[in-house]
Amino acid sequence: MLVKDIGEFGLIGRIAQLLPRGPADVVVGIGDDVAVLKTSGPDYLLATCDKQAEGVHFKTCAISAYQLGRRAVAINVSDVAAMGGYPLWMLVSLAITEATDVAFIDELYRGMIEQAGLAGAAIVGGNLSRAESGISIDITLLGRIAPECLVLRSGARVGDAILVTGLPGESRAGFELVRNPQIRVSESARSRVMERHFTPQPRLREGQLLAEAGLVRAMVDVSDGLMADLGHICEASQVGAVVETERLPVSKAVSEVADSGHANEARARALDWILAGGEDYELLFTASCENVPRIQKMLLSESGLKCTQIGQIIAEAGTLRLSNPDGTETSLPPGPRGWDHFGGRKTEER
Amino acid sequence: MLVKDIGEFGLIGRIAQLLPRGPADVVVGIGDDVAVLKTSGPDYLLATCDKQAEGVHFKTCAISAYQLGRRAVAINVSDVAAMGGYPLWMLVSLAITEATDVAFIDELYRGMIEQAGLAGAAIVGGNLSRAESGISIDITLLGRIAPECLVLRSGARVGDAILVTGLPGESRAGFELVRNPQIRVSESARSRVMERHFTPQPRLREGQLLAEAGLVRAMVDVSDGLMADLGHICEASQVGAVVETERLPVSKAVSEVADSGHANEARARALDWILAGGEDYELLFTASCENVPRIQKMLLSESGLKCTQIGQIIAEAGTLRLSNPDGTETSLPPGPRGWDHFGGRKTEER
Repeated sequence: MLVKDIGEFGLIGRIAQLLPRGPADVVVGIGDDVAVLKTSGPDYLLATCDKQAEGVHFKTCAISAYQLGRRAVAINVSDVAAMGGYPLWMLVSLAITEATDVAFIDELYRGMIEQAGLAGAAIVGGNLSRAESGISIDITLLGRIAPECLVLRSGARVGDAILVTGLPGESRAGFELVRNPQIRVSESARSRVMERHFTPQPRLREGQLLAEAGLVRAMVDVSDGLMADLGHICEASQVGAVVETERLPVSKAVSEVADSGHANEARARALDWILAGGEDYELLFTASCENVPRIQKMLLSESGLKCTQIGQIIAEAGTLRLSNPDGTETSLPPGPRGWDHFGGRKTEER
Repeated sequence: MLVKDIGEFGLIGRIAQLLPRGPADVVVGIGDDVAVLKTSGPDYLLATCDKQAEGVHFKTCAISAYQLGRRAVAINVSDVAAMGGYPLWMLVSLAITEATDVAFIDELYRGMIEQAGLAGAAIVGGNLSRAESGISIDITLLGRIAPECLVLRSGARVGDAILVTGLPGESRAGFELVRNPQIRVSESARSRVMERHFTPQPRLREGQLLAEAGLVRAMVDVSDGLMADLGHICEASQVGAVVETERLPVSKAVSEVADSGHANEARARALDWILAGGEDYELLFTASCENVPRIQKMLLSESGLKCTQIGQIIAEAGTLRLSNPDGTETSLPPGPRGWDHFGGRKTEER
């Protein structure tokens, strides 16, 4: 049996089975994006790692070393943000070839240092090793959270509203322009979606605000894809979800890119990018319906970010449905609905 | 300027220059094998990462998945051991191809879980990603230490004795047999050095004993090579060192492998392996001369491990000398004296 036969999440499940039961100091262990650990102090320690590998996650002809550095840090910060945590320290494991230009490393670190600085984190160590071919950057980010503020995937309750920050789909629209540079769109749309694709901004302050206000029941960041990540919440919380497509926030830039050359199917393309594009690094969370206006007002006033109610948590565990404006519903098939490193339906390079 | 022009340690120095000054909660940052961090509790947090990549650090035809799992964990545990710390949690970032056999992953995890269990650590998370070719395992190990027990590289003082645990050189002898399987040696020597090469045992309990007894001033593990790692102590402590070659512990197995087919140069080969072979994961440390008998007795009685005084710390900063039995001395050139991922003089594959 090969890895491609069971896919990324099948493999994670299998590994989780192999592991002995976690000791008492492990609050959240394998299966989540972030491990939550009890230390000798009052705070919990958060630990997460994420990798960017040449040829798999990026091409050096498409992304600059500076952008790559920012991105590699941002995707880790986003995982800590989705728990409401505070990033503290980073280890950088860098594999490079002998022929890597030192200027590339300088720029990579400039990007990492800048993005780490925005998150209040410091690079405190790591490892350098030789790669036979292809650069890779594997970052471990450590952070902290007060136990009473911790938000997990597993807290969603039936009847909860489902909300998402910002404008998901823009990163996927940027990827469309990378793949098809000949697409003609306005310069403002192009620069907007390219920036969102190459240097996504994790919603760190927003995650902290939501967690500290105690208004959020379950939260993830949108990395695999909105529906796939909503599936992670549903699985962990043993609930289902209905997303109302007409409520989805469609950015002007996404519309423009989706429309270019595909006027007939522009809306379907835009919805697909929003629902399954991934790598948005927006926050997707659930909250009691009565708290929705308060949450929206708080995020808008404190960080200038809109968030949109896009659906509701339902009782049928594992069910993910799209509710269409004409009253019809579409059930999403069980199993991977977005990014899977080994069964993924989308090209992974950018 | 390319990476190979400045080498691993040149690059680490350059990166350290790029980083902003570490915040107050960073006790030891970049440049050491392990970061030491102040948490909200009384203990310090230790964080280290080390990688094993196919084709660079191992060949799947030479090492089993189980051995690889043990080894990948052991080299990280060894770094924590060299500070006197206690391993707690591990994140495993695994890059595999779609065509990796799931049985390989099972065996890899069996090895990792077993070695982690020996160290009292639990696998609490990680990351799975697709590799274009070649498996890699990047492990981050977190641990703890009471601040008063922490041993760094930087504490060596002029006049200190230099000691090493166990029998360095055996891993290098094992590598010799991997490269030249036709070498004829006794089965006991073969199995001994192969085991030491493929599944080295970090000196965790010994590191903790030494640290808690307060008898050690500076300590590292022997990964790059005994002289190279002694150089790290000297650099951090701004001292020099003289190693007396006649004091070096030469294992029977090392002698046997070194002798096979090279009777004339057997001793020189054995010494070279001991001094520069690396990957022994023994502890190399300095202590006040008057404490040497006490240290040796303690390690022997509490863990059954011999340790040998091999030289002395001297005042001339950066000087590394070998003192020969005939009274002559050999100065080692400055710069890398063992493993350098980009300027390394030895083949890195095993």
